[in-house]
Amino acid sequence: MADAIQPLRFEGGALHVLDQRALPSEERWIRCDTPEQVADCIRTLAVRGAPAIGVAAAYGVALADDREAAAALLRATRPTAVNLGWALDRCLASDDPLAAARAIHEDQREADLCLSRLGAERFSEGDRALTHCNSGPLATGGYGTGVGVLRAAFERGRLTSVWVDETRPLLQGARLTAWELTRAGIPHRVIADSSAGSVIAAGAVDRIVVGADRIAANGDVANKIGTYPLAVLAARHGVPFYVAAPLSTIDPDTPDGGAIPIEERDPGEVVGWTDAFNPAFDVTPAELVTAIFTEAGVLEPPYDAAISSVT
Amino acid sequence: MADAIQPLRFEGGALHVLDQRALPSEERWIRCDTPEQVADCIRTLAVRGAPAIGVAAAYGVALADDREAAAALLRATRPTAVNLGWALDRCLASDDPLAAARAIHEDQREADLCLSRLGAERFSEGDRALTHCNSGPLATGGYGTGVGVLRAAFERGRLTSVWVDETRPLLQGARLTAWELTRAGIPHRVIADSSAGSVIAAGAVDRIVVGADRIAANGDVANKIGTYPLAVLAARHGVPFYVAAPLSTIDPDTPDGGAIPIEERDPGEVVGWTDAFNPAFDVTPAELVTAIFTEAGVLEPPYDAAISSVT
Repeated sequence: MADAIQPLRFEGGALHVLDQRALPSEERWIRCDTPEQVADCIRTLAVRGAPAIGVAAAYGVALADDREAAAALLRATRPTAVNLGWALDRCLASDDPLAAARAIHEDQREADLCLSRLGAERFSEGDRALTHCNSGPLATGGYGTGVGVLRAAFERGRLTSVWVDETRPLLQGARLTAWELTRAGIPHRVIADSSAGSVIAAGAVDRIVVGADRIAANGDVANKIGTYPLAVLAARHGVPFYVAAPLSTIDPDTPDGGAIPIEERDPGEVVGWTDAFNPAFDVTPAELVTAIFTEAGVLEPPYDAAISSVT
Repeated sequence: MADAIQPLRFEGGALHVLDQRALPSEERWIRCDTPEQVADCIRTLAVRGAPAIGVAAAYGVALADDREAAAALLRATRPTAVNLGWALDRCLASDDPLAAARAIHEDQREADLCLSRLGAERFSEGDRALTHCNSGPLATGGYGTGVGVLRAAFERGRLTSVWVDETRPLLQGARLTAWELTRAGIPHRVIADSSAGSVIAAGAVDRIVVGADRIAANGDVANKIGTYPLAVLAARHGVPFYVAAPLSTIDPDTPDGGAIPIEERDPGEVVGWTDAFNPAFDVTPAELVTAIFTEAGVLEPPYDAAISSVT
């Protein structure tokens, strides 16, 4: 079950990428023989999710003749997730980039399982959760981070159902998380992002769990646009707000959320007929985060001390 | 300019409805010769917006042979907006329903102008506003309520630009409000609803203005799903949160927001491939509302006293 969904496979000397833009209607695979093809998959969101981007980029370096050039190309694809640079640096430091890429992939699977187990401990029987965007196997190449916690809680009988934010503009919640939860047999209902406020106010959400694209040294969390409003609503209604992420998502060199670069994407992803503003991520201040689940343990406030103790 | 957009025209013994489902790509008109056709336009959202629904329903009664039956049919089309029942009762009480419908329409235009003028007084030069859903001419049959305030503020040089929530699932913001603002020459950018938190947190919003579908006696406001999260974000960041609505939207017989029926629409409006929950409205508690602009004046807390003084 843990590996039922594998968005990245290295076989026959090539990286095979499950094209997440075509899900859930079609399971289409893209074969990448060059780092340029991997970079294209990352840039166009055929593969997305901070940990999965890191794993894919590592395989991209392994496919290159000129590793430094490949790493530079891959590093420039998307600015917010820090796992990308972390994985590239680890690959470049190795004599055997393919072995390093496989190790990064395997470490991600293990980190996911570990942090998911830790997160599930915070759940109680009958809990109903809410999540935003996608932080499952598709986003990590492993068991999932935010969705991993939900899977682990469900397997332990501590989760009854999940509200899934559809996650505009690209609908990663409605398309990807709902697909993963269906395959895992976890009851769920999709809502428009703007319905989360009503559902939380009605007392129908016991816990909120999301992944992260970068966590700053003070605990501020960059994640898919729309995460911050959820954290504000959670605080108002006394609902725990959890972030699940591997240590590779934590960037001790970024002091706080204000220093995290926020990717702006094509306005056409929002509307085609008038001007739009389309930031891909937002920043949730550490004060609104109840706990951060990592493979090194559950981090709790004060986050600066907790983070410096594990990074 | 005030009447440049007219979504409802009574001509040649029939009500002509601008089909708002086809905007902005097409300006298509639907001719209604019977109350059944008007009810169908309301139910399927060819005409929407609480005040415009009231005006359309009034014309629907004027088209009927059996006025009581027509009013019952029209009353059952949508449950949340209270203007509908208010307009039907006013029509039924009249000897000349067509004259009553025309008077309701004309009164709406005057109320819009009056409350928009009052609201604009609260704006200052250079203000940037944010709005949700559509509360312009298309939603009222007049000058607009929330968008009316924006138009009046812009005409007085007190508004520089507007952030427009796209308003999932039916995109009334991206399709209708952006279209109205373009015609009024008001600079604007559309955002995914979940981007509002970032824009507000960045200090790029000076005022939030929305319309309303029903206002309870204590000042609780039912409006398009997604309004409540905006009010919570506004409170957190000290941004004034205004509601603009004619007195016909205020229901002194509804004690508070908990007593307002919230319409649930087809889950297929959200997603087609998995289960969804699709409430059309949410409730914003009075404590989060800075002021309510009505044609009888600006209402301010405590709202129970303010509302009972004008209803």
